[in-house]
Formats: sequence, structure tokens, C-alpha cells
Amino acid sequence: MVKNLLEGKKGIIFGALNDRSIAWKVAEKAVEQGAQITLSNTAVACRMGEIKELSARLNAPLIAADATNVDDLKEVFRQSMEIFGGKVDFVLHSIGMSLNVRKKRTYNDLDYDFLNKTLDISSISFHKMLQTAYQMDAINEWGSIVALTYIASQRTLFGYNDMADAKALLESIGRSFGYIFGSERHVRVNTISQSPTATTAGSGIAGFDGLMDFSDRMSPLGNATAEDCANFCITMFSDLTKKITMQNIFHDGGFSSVGMSERAMTQYNKSFENESK
Amino acid sequence: MVKNLLEGKKGIIFGALNDRSIAWKVAEKAVEQGAQITLSNTAVACRMGEIKELSARLNAPLIAADATNVDDLKEVFRQSMEIFGGKVDFVLHSIGMSLNVRKKRTYNDLDYDFLNKTLDISSISFHKMLQTAYQMDAINEWGSIVALTYIASQRTLFGYNDMADAKALLESIGRSFGYIFGSERHVRVNTISQSPTATTAGSGIAGFDGLMDFSDRMSPLGNATAEDCANFCITMFSDLTKKITMQNIFHDGGFSSVGMSERAMTQYNKSFENESK
Amino acid sequence: MVKNLLEGKKGIIFGALNDRSIAWKVAEKAVEQGAQITLSNTAVACRMGEIKELSARLNAPLIAADATNVDDLKEVFRQSMEIFGGKVDFVLHSIGMSLNVRKKRTYNDLDYDFLNKTLDISSISFHKMLQTAYQMDAINEWGSIVALTYIASQRTLFGYNDMADAKALLESIGRSFGYIFGSERHVRVNTISQSPTATTAGSGIAGFDGLMDFSDRMSPLGNATAEDCANFCITMFSDLTKKITMQNIFHDGGFSSVGMSERAMTQYNKSFENESK
Amino acid sequence: MVKNLLEGKKGIIFGALNDRSIAWKVAEKAVEQGAQITLSNTAVACRMGEIKELSARLNAPLIAADATNVDDLKEVFRQSMEIFGGKVDFVLHSIGMSLNVRKKRTYNDLDYDFLNKTLDISSISFHKMLQTAYQMDAINEWGSIVALTYIASQRTLFGYNDMADAKALLESIGRSFGYIFGSERHVRVNTISQSPTATTAGSGIAGFDGLMDFSDRMSPLGNATAEDCANFCITMFSDLTKKITMQNIFHDGGFSSVGMSERAMTQYNKSFENESK
Repeated sequence: MVKNLLEGKKGIIFGALNDRSIAWKVAEKAVEQGAQITLSNTAVACRMGEIKELSARLNAPLIAADATNVDDLKEVFRQSMEIFGGKVDFVLHSIGMSLNVRKKRTYNDLDYDFLNKTLDISSISFHKMLQTAYQMDAINEWGSIVALTYIASQRTLFGYNDMADAKALLESIGRSFGYIFGSERHVRVNTISQSPTATTAGSGIAGFDGLMDFSDRMSPLGNATAEDCANFCITMFSDLTKKITMQNIFHDGGFSSVGMSERAMTQYNKSFENESK
Repeated sequence: MVKNLLEGKKGIIFGALNDRSIAWKVAEKAVEQGAQITLSNTAVACRMGEIKELSARLNAPLIAADATNVDDLKEVFRQSMEIFGGKVDFVLHSIGMSLNVRKKRTYNDLDYDFLNKTLDISSISFHKMLQTAYQMDAINEWGSIVALTYIASQRTLFGYNDMADAKALLESIGRSFGYIFGSERHVRVNTISQSPTATTAGSGIAGFDGLMDFSDRMSPLGNATAEDCANFCITMFSDLTKKITMQNIFHDGGFSSVGMSERAMTQYNKSFENESK
Repeated sequence: MVKNLLEGKKGIIFGALNDRSIAWKVAEKAVEQGAQITLSNTAVACRMGEIKELSARLNAPLIAADATNVDDLKEVFRQSMEIFGGKVDFVLHSIGMSLNVRKKRTYNDLDYDFLNKTLDISSISFHKMLQTAYQMDAINEWGSIVALTYIASQRTLFGYNDMADAKALLESIGRSFGYIFGSERHVRVNTISQSPTATTAGSGIAGFDGLMDFSDRMSPLGNATAEDCANFCITMFSDLTKKITMQNIFHDGGFSSVGMSERAMTQYNKSFENESK
Repeated sequence: MVKNLLEGKKGIIFGALNDRSIAWKVAEKAVEQGAQITLSNTAVACRMGEIKELSARLNAPLIAADATNVDDLKEVFRQSMEIFGGKVDFVLHSIGMSLNVRKKRTYNDLDYDFLNKTLDISSISFHKMLQTAYQMDAINEWGSIVALTYIASQRTLFGYNDMADAKALLESIGRSFGYIFGSERHVRVNTISQSPTATTAGSGIAGFDGLMDFSDRMSPLGNATAEDCANFCITMFSDLTKKITMQNIFHDGGFSSVGMSERAMTQYNKSFENESK
């Protein structure tokens, strides 16, 4: 197995909650590859036993922060740089939440205060993170910043609701800030568009199981798991991908490039057998 | 010349300000093609002489509304349906504004209250418009709703600032609501991605003149004008485009599909002549 | 109903075979809107009674040509200009055929002579048509040239085989030549990506019925028909879309922008009911 | 520095010509990361001293083959598997050539025999490679196949000529075969869309220097070099990117996501200074 892909690098991982989280797997793999990291999540999440255990096991200090609060974000970067004794090389943004989804407000009956919260938590937090890091000059040259997203930003998926719009905004922020961070600091910013993943967040979406099955049968390589995604994130943080920026890269077993697979079609066609009886 | 392309149709045009506005041209062309329309803009805009003159000339009642205010939007649809004696066939959303641009806050120094306003005015207003129309059942079957956008949503343009993110969000809202409006009401929702246009709004962008020149030389057919755009909008409101929905269509003289044109390259290469002297 | 959208315009329609053909519907609508047209198809197709009847009914001379043969294409343009007493305003390319599909050679067992034929007939014929028209200076300023394509060029559909690659090549040729035709002659070139359509050509694809059903349930407005497509083509030939070029426009009831619809998911989920019994 | 990213892996590199070739750099890096490789190029290229020296230095047997000839390709895979004592883990396709470019036939005056050759050499060779490997069952599970491409496939660049269409066809073949190779063998197929690179092939394009400068100023991170590209290829061959398939990934310093950069605009604006004098 490869070792030391992130040797000497320092990173901040936002959004690890439990061992189903993609951010959790990224944290583990980053440390395995020689990186030193800090973890950040909300104060509520930080009080949970699981993330404390991860923090201890990886020797990765846990810094509570509301990612919609610029002062909190400043504190995360300040403390991290203090711990690292220098600037940051990589950042993962794995944060998203919709009260409209949680409260079962459909997309044609959105609560606009909820929508503002969805965008603030899931998208604008990324801008705040980038702007804070930029203004504090907290990122090393050739650093790498990644946010996780989902194909709903390009193609509507029944039930994904206002999170689709939040992901579109998130990807746009990645591009827009990637332009500046690249031009002025040689720092790259990308988003990774991951298969639907059975995380705590993912499971909240209506009809998630059927979608997971369909997505898996549509994808030539099947759905990518959280662990698969973490592996890819590691390459994006490494020095081997220095010239990729402002991209949204699909890490999805091929789903995004399939119109109809034989496997999904075969399953779909079974739906008519019943009916014809 | 073709006549009666919109015969018998009723529409609402949001965002006409003066005769450089795309919405202004759309209003004129829609009426020319047999439609009956109402106009809506902010209370401040409605007090200007120009739009009053347009309203009078086109026999198109002017309904003041803040497009970020759901009650105001309800009133626009209610009054319009009363005037039309029935439901609405088409709607144009041509609304956008960024205080960060106006106040010269660069993208790495955004004011987040301004950003929220940018998104509320330029993007969420479209959702509010769609949700209001949906909940009031205000749109006829096979109706057509169009919002104007710009390629900055896909490719970063220096100086376009947070309007790029606003346009990405706008386009996503068009897709997301287009899914519902299509499935349940046979109403289509699209965005038109127009060349940079010398409207009052466009002129506020930093370095706009150079960009206009570059864009024009890159586009095989040159930049599309406000009048060109209005012509295309008319076809999108007509019965000839019934099965197009959830699309973002580039109306830009070819710009979006050009990596480098001979005309732009020739001009670009002139920049080195000076230097080599 | 609108009349005279193509008043005074002259056009050539390639590929009408019978009344299920999109090209057939385009021919009818073009004439209905005031255009004068000629029809072209292979010598074999031209001997069929149906197309002769169409030709007579529309007063549209039929010119036999192998679209892969440059001399034949020259003759089509020469004769058409003679008939019209002037240059051509619009051209429709609706031509495609794969011997690999017909002979049931799967994509991992292609016959390369067949592949060359697929590309020559379905894609390179479009370049030959454009180059011939360009070199003969046969197209009026602001003329409009359209080729029909399918989303398989972007997303793999099981069974669509080498036609997917042919459509990708076709769309690229449209862009590449659109650049030249636009810059030098103010002529626009676009492709329309149409829903799967139950034409004679479409029906040859493996598993076509299941795909049609899936596509229909995925599309908020349902699959677009040949007649719908013809309506849209007419707008693309008209003076109202003068500044659109080098684009691939989806005319597909929304299919291209949907990741999963409620209707398709409901049907898909029925497939499991049988199994669980 | 990371080591052993490709430990134990076997690969075939098509298209290394001299030390400016991307394939050359990939060969070096692959061996550096622990892979065993073979090299293949045309008989003419194989007679050159440079590639023989590379072959000797990397202990990488050189197998002459015309990549448009299926029998030759079979021989490459047969010999490689014999040398490796087993199946192949990765393949790089870095092959492209246009006689229309070389003979200065412009895109509106293509020679169609040349075009067929362009497509056969630059695109169909990739299908032949994939089909040969598939039919010989020559690729290990989770193997990775990559072809190099250029953004001209999506956006026309003046002077790139029929290579644009060839790249579009190449990318489509990658997707189409990626579907099959993924579904049936868990092998992934991707294309990497690289910055313009000053290779022997790249330098043949008209106006290449001006384009390189423009591209560099448009790209926030500057043009990616051949060495940068090789680094990224290595990650795509590694086990860390197992679930990425059927994708076209831009490795271009951000160029593809920029509409206009400040640096390019500043240079462009200088072109007018001369004129106004």
C-alpha cells in the first residue's frame, strides 16, 4: 500500500460526524498518509462521543465552530495554524443541511427562512471558509481545498428539494473563489460530486433507498462508498494534482455519464411483469 | 414579418426599466405578436417616466412590486389575472442586483448581508415568483416561464463577482421548479443565457467595455443585442417550443462554444506589438 | 395559429422517409409557414411511394443523393438554387444509420468497416453538406442549418452502440463548422437533441420500447414527438433565433435535466414487488 | 516524496516520442512509482534513438505497432502480458495526428481521406485498443485506461481544425466503452483534458504560441505542463481513484472554468493602446 502521500501536510476537516461520514473516512486516510489534521464541527456534534474518540485516536484536535459564523471560522484557522506551527495545506468542506427537507416542506411549498438557512449552512459557509482563509493568509502555496457535492445540482432528483439549489450554489462558489485563490495564491479549489452515500445526512432524503438502488444499477462500477470517496480526496490533497482547479469532478462509479444501463433497464422492465398479469 | 405568434396569450414582464432593458424589448415584441401583458417593477422604478410611457403605449398595466416579497408577488398575479380575465401564459424574470458590485466589495471581501440581498433579489425572487404562481394556480397549461441569466454561472469572469453565484442559483431554481411545474401542470421553465448586454445593470460591472469587445470578437455572430434576445424570448413563449423545459439555452452569438476565435486572437496578439518595440 | 414564420424562405430537407420521420414533419410545417423547399434522400428512399406523395403534395422537388458523396451534395445544392432562383435559407440534416446496430454487432465487437460507414453516413455527411454549401456560397446571410441528434452523445444508453459516438462527432462538426459559417457568412449551425422518437430509424435500437417508457416517465413533459420537434425546428429556421449558433439544444420534455423523477421511481419500485413475493 | 503508488502494477504506454511528450513523462513517473511498463509507438518512431534510450533506461520493452491496426494491437497486448507474466493494470493512449493540419487544409476545405485518417489514428485507435484488450481479457479487475484529450472537443479553437472533432469522438469512445468495461470487468476508462502543451504534436497547430500565452493568462494556475499531467495520470492509474469512470477531467490550471481572467483582460486591453495612438 502507498504511504506518505500527504507527508508533512496539515489539514482541516469540517463535517465528520460518525463512521459513516465521508469526512470521517477522509480524516482517517489523511492521517494514514502522513498528514497532521484538526477536526471541526458544530458544538452539538462535538459533544458526541464518537467524534471525540476519532479526535483522540487520530491525535487530531477538535475545534467546535458554527461554519456560518465568520468569527468561529477565524478561530478554527487560528487555532489550527497554532497547532500546526504554520499554514494549512488542505481543507475539506463536508457540510450540508436543509430544514425544508427535515420539516418535509416540499419544493413548491418552501419556507423561505428555512431556504436561507439551507443556503447559509450548505453553501455560503464555504465562501465564509474560503474568505476567512484568504484574508488570514492561512493556506500554503499549492494548497488544496475541496467541498463535497451531489449531481442534483445539475439534474433534478425527486425529493432532493432545496439541497439541489444549495449544491449548485456551492459549486459556483468553488469556481468563483478558485479563480482568485488560484491566480493570487496558487491554491486550488474543487468540488467532488459523490454518489449518493448512506451517511446520516443522505438518509434524510425522501425515497433514498430506491434512489440508492437505481443509482447503483445505473453506475457501471456501482455507487462509490464513503471510503472510496476518501481515497479520491487524498489524491486531490496531494502534490500530484496541483494543476486541477475550479473543477467539479464526478466520483460516482460512472453514474453521471450513463443515460440508461442494461442492469437498471432490466430491473425497470420487471415492473411491468406484475402489471401485465 | 411574422404576426400573431403570441395571439391570445397573456403574460407578465418583470424588470423593464428603460429602452435598453431586455425586458422592455420583450414587452414590445410580445404585444407586437398579439399578446396582452402587464408590467412589474419596484415602486421606485415604477415612478420613472419611461416605464409609465411604455405602459401607456403598450396598454400594459404597471403593477409595482418588490420581487423578494411574496405578498407583493401574489398581488401581481392576482391583479394580472383580473386584468386578463384568466390565467397567465408566460412570465419573464429579468431581475438582478448586487450591492457587493455596487459598493465595490471584491469577491474575496464580500459583505454577507449584501450577498444575502444579491441572492434574494437575483435568484430567490425567481423561486418566490414560481411558488406564488404555482400555489395560486395562476399559469395556464403549456405556459412558459423564462428567466435571463449569464454564462458567469458556469465560467468565472473577472469582476462579475457574486452575481456569478446568483446566476448559478437562478439556473438551478429554474431546473428544480421546472421539474415540478412540468410534471404537474405541463408548464415549462427555462433560462436564457444572454451575451453581455449594455443595459443599465450590465454597465455596472468592472471592466465591462473590454469584456464586451472581447466577447464580441469571440462570438462568431457577435454579441446578441437586447432586441435579438427579445426575439428569442418570443419563440420560447410561443406554442412552437412546448417540449423544451429545465434548459439553460445560450443566446450569445456562439460565445459559449468558442475557446479562441481568429478575430479575438488577432486583437490579442496586437497587445504584444507595443511591448516588443 | 401563427402563419408566415418562414415567409419567403427557401430550404432543403434531408432525410424524410415516411410520416413518422421528423424530417417529414419539418417539411410539412416549413411549407405551412410559407417556405419553399426541396427534399433529398437516397435513391432507394426516393423510389418509395410515400416520399413521392409528400413531394407532390408540398410542391417540393425530390432530389436523390447519397449524402456521403460530395458530388451528389453539390447537385442537391445546385438544383435547389436553380429551383429557388437564389440561395438557400435553411437546411435540415436528419440522417443516421449504423450497420453495427443492424447486424447486431455489440459495441465491444464492432466491425470497423461498419463503424466507418456509421460515421460517414451519420456524421461526416454533415461536414460534407456544410463544406459543399460553404464552397458553393449556397447559403444566404443569417441562414440556419440544423442537424438532429440524441443525448447518447453525452450519456451512454445501453444498446445505442456506435450511434452514440456518431452523434458526438456530429455535434462537434456542428460546432466546428458553426464557428466558420458564423464568422465569415453570418450563418448559424446548431444541433437539436431530441427525445427518443418512434421513427423507422429509432425502432432499430435494442430495447427501444422500455427505453421510450423510461424516458417518458423521466421527462416532466413526456417525450417530445416528431411533430413537437418540427415545431421547434421551424423557430430555429426563423429570423427570431438569429443569434443562436454552435449550440446543442435539448428538445426532450426535460429528460436531460432530470436525475430521477417521481413517476419513473414509482414505476421502478414496482419491480421489487414481484420479487418480494 | 511519495513512493510505490503503482507498486506491483503493469502498464502499457502508447505514444511516447521524446522528452517533451506527455507519454514520456508518464512512463518515467510510472516506473518511479513502482510500475513495470512496456512502451509502444509506430515502427518509424521506434527507430529513433530517444525512445530506445528511454526504453533501456526504464527497462521498458518497446513494441512497435500501428495503433490503427488491430493485429498490431493484439501483438502489443500479447507481448506485454508475456513480459508481465499476467494481465495489464493500466494503459495510456496519447496518440493523435491530422494530415489536414499538416497539409494546411483548413476546416472548410478538408480532404476527406485525410479526415478519415485523422479519426482512425486519433480516435478509432482508442476503440481498437479497448476492444482488443477486452476481447483478449487483457486487463485486470480495477484496471485503469486513460486517453489524453483537449478542450477543443467542447469549444472551438481557431486552427485546431479536424483534431477538435477527433477529440470529441475520442471522448465519446471513452464513455461508451467505459460503460461496458466498467459493468462487465470493473475496469475504468477516462479521458484527461490537458492544457495546450508544447509537445511535437502541439506545436503543429497554427497560431500555437499566441494560444499558449492566452491560455496561460486565462488559467489561474497557468498552463499545466507535461510533467504536471504525468503526475495526475499516475493518480488515475492508482487504486485511489477506483470509482471514477466515463469522465473527462480537465487538468488545465482552471482554464475550462474561466470566461475571462484579469490577467488575460489586461493583456488584451493593451492591444488597443497601440491603436488609439
